[in-house]
Amino acid sequence: MQEVRVFAPATVANVAVGFDILGFAIQRPGDEIVARRSTEFTGVRITTITGTGDKVLPLEVERNTAGTAALRLLEHLGLQDSVGIELEVHKRMPFGSGLGSSAASAAGAAVAVNTLLGSPLTREAILYFTVLGEEVADGSFHADNVAPCLVGGITLIRSNESLDIQHLPVPANLHVAVVHPEIEILTRDARAVLSDTVPLKTAIHQLGSLGSFVAALYTNDLPLLGRSLRDYIIEPQRKQLITGFDEVQQAALERGALGCSISGAGPSMFALCDSGYLAQAVGQAMQAAFQQRGVESQLYVSPINQQGVQILSEIS
Amino acid sequence: MQEVRVFAPATVANVAVGFDILGFAIQRPGDEIVARRSTEFTGVRITTITGTGDKVLPLEVERNTAGTAALRLLEHLGLQDSVGIELEVHKRMPFGSGLGSSAASAAGAAVAVNTLLGSPLTREAILYFTVLGEEVADGSFHADNVAPCLVGGITLIRSNESLDIQHLPVPANLHVAVVHPEIEILTRDARAVLSDTVPLKTAIHQLGSLGSFVAALYTNDLPLLGRSLRDYIIEPQRKQLITGFDEVQQAALERGALGCSISGAGPSMFALCDSGYLAQAVGQAMQAAFQQRGVESQLYVSPINQQGVQILSEIS
Repeated sequence: MQEVRVFAPATVANVAVGFDILGFAIQRPGDEIVARRSTEFTGVRITTITGTGDKVLPLEVERNTAGTAALRLLEHLGLQDSVGIELEVHKRMPFGSGLGSSAASAAGAAVAVNTLLGSPLTREAILYFTVLGEEVADGSFHADNVAPCLVGGITLIRSNESLDIQHLPVPANLHVAVVHPEIEILTRDARAVLSDTVPLKTAIHQLGSLGSFVAALYTNDLPLLGRSLRDYIIEPQRKQLITGFDEVQQAALERGALGCSISGAGPSMFALCDSGYLAQAVGQAMQAAFQQRGVESQLYVSPINQQGVQILSEIS
Repeated sequence: MQEVRVFAPATVANVAVGFDILGFAIQRPGDEIVARRSTEFTGVRITTITGTGDKVLPLEVERNTAGTAALRLLEHLGLQDSVGIELEVHKRMPFGSGLGSSAASAAGAAVAVNTLLGSPLTREAILYFTVLGEEVADGSFHADNVAPCLVGGITLIRSNESLDIQHLPVPANLHVAVVHPEIEILTRDARAVLSDTVPLKTAIHQLGSLGSFVAALYTNDLPLLGRSLRDYIIEPQRKQLITGFDEVQQAALERGALGCSISGAGPSMFALCDSGYLAQAVGQAMQAAFQQRGVESQLYVSPINQQGVQILSEIS
């Protein structure tokens, strides 16, 4: 294989009930990554990064999520001194949006490189290298964005340390509205507002909600899913960073969303709904609520993406 | 109906992963409760309490879990001034054992009275009165023992406040060894050793474990159940109250248990196993480990009790 082009989808992590351990993939937006063989060097080089607007992402492989994921995978296969790979990274989604931008680049690069090399590893097996890639961007080792980006669906992480991942069932009609407001939050700032302790009573509420959310997915019980979709731990601390949070959440719930909370570290917000039609209407209500506070936003409506990273083209 | 006699089973609450929100029922031990109509008074009277050994339980209805559950139920039906009910409470299990003794008396009384009155309410509908009964004993409103005692199986509580209860599936081969050591812990002491905050990282680990435990029950994945059955929050704080805890847990795991932790507030310990044969062997290994520390114990081995409170006899 000479060249592979992939699409790596955006993801919603935390999902209200599962801080750092739960995430799902959506259809759009996402990044495109191209991996191409080169005979002029060995190892990984990033040749092109597009779509970053007025921001700059590092071309240096060890400082770039896509580059690091690709290089760690190449090293694992023992090919770093015999194979040369050029990467193109085409950002098609905002960073710092809470939509797993760095995870998408890392997962896309790992799948593109693995495919370029004839797919020696399964997607589950490349998860580790993808997490190492994302770690470059946010400094912590967690898979709640990369796992659903890589394999699609709704993923639950028993342990980030051992990357013990479960694929949860996706109710047929479940759709999501994701609204990205034009507010800037850095992931590290979003982490800084969090207390490092949780009241025991709050932890108990969150455990009950997470357990019931998982049960709701297995039993296709969307009313239970709605009653369960509550963030007692993180949302009360982080919502102050999002202008209009309360009004947007209220607009989503009044329009009929099952639940609405912060996507990842924010500022994007997601709402789960029991139909695509409703998700569209809920998303528009959320946008209108942001607008009333003077905040412009983009809306993405989709079912849960069950595919994960998608191979767009291969050149032999 | 003139008289109803019921058996109310012991229960294992918390189950390592779900403090205050998870519990299951076992086959034995349990309490027997008799409810009998009387024409000599109206309301509820407790005529007999047996099996308390050298301890004393209050005969006064408002201070007794069984009496309170029965009276609240009678009041809900508007019959407290027209119907008289005598209760006999036959304790067949130790109190302060972590096996839901007070919950069993409350659930047994509520079912016996409801049955005596021609079963006007479902078991789900009498849960509230049963929780009110147990509250008399331990001062807090929670259903993690009474819910599985009442309806059997493994129950998950989204919210103790609203008593939103889910019945989780029970893997066919799942058996439990419960060992009750002759150590005394009062529920209020077991609560007093607990910090009222949890480190955020610990809460995340517990969320991952609880979610995976629930997923394991739905997918019949006993290895995952084993990997998930970890108590990061409560066990490290409470195990000091149980002489030999570490050795007993190690003995259970080495003999092949899926997991082993504290039953309820202790001192009883439970181990989940993938066969009845193994549960017997694991239980004996746990007893031997207690014995090595000079602690005598009783062993109960059973599948998960899927029936809950059982009606033993009815006299019309």
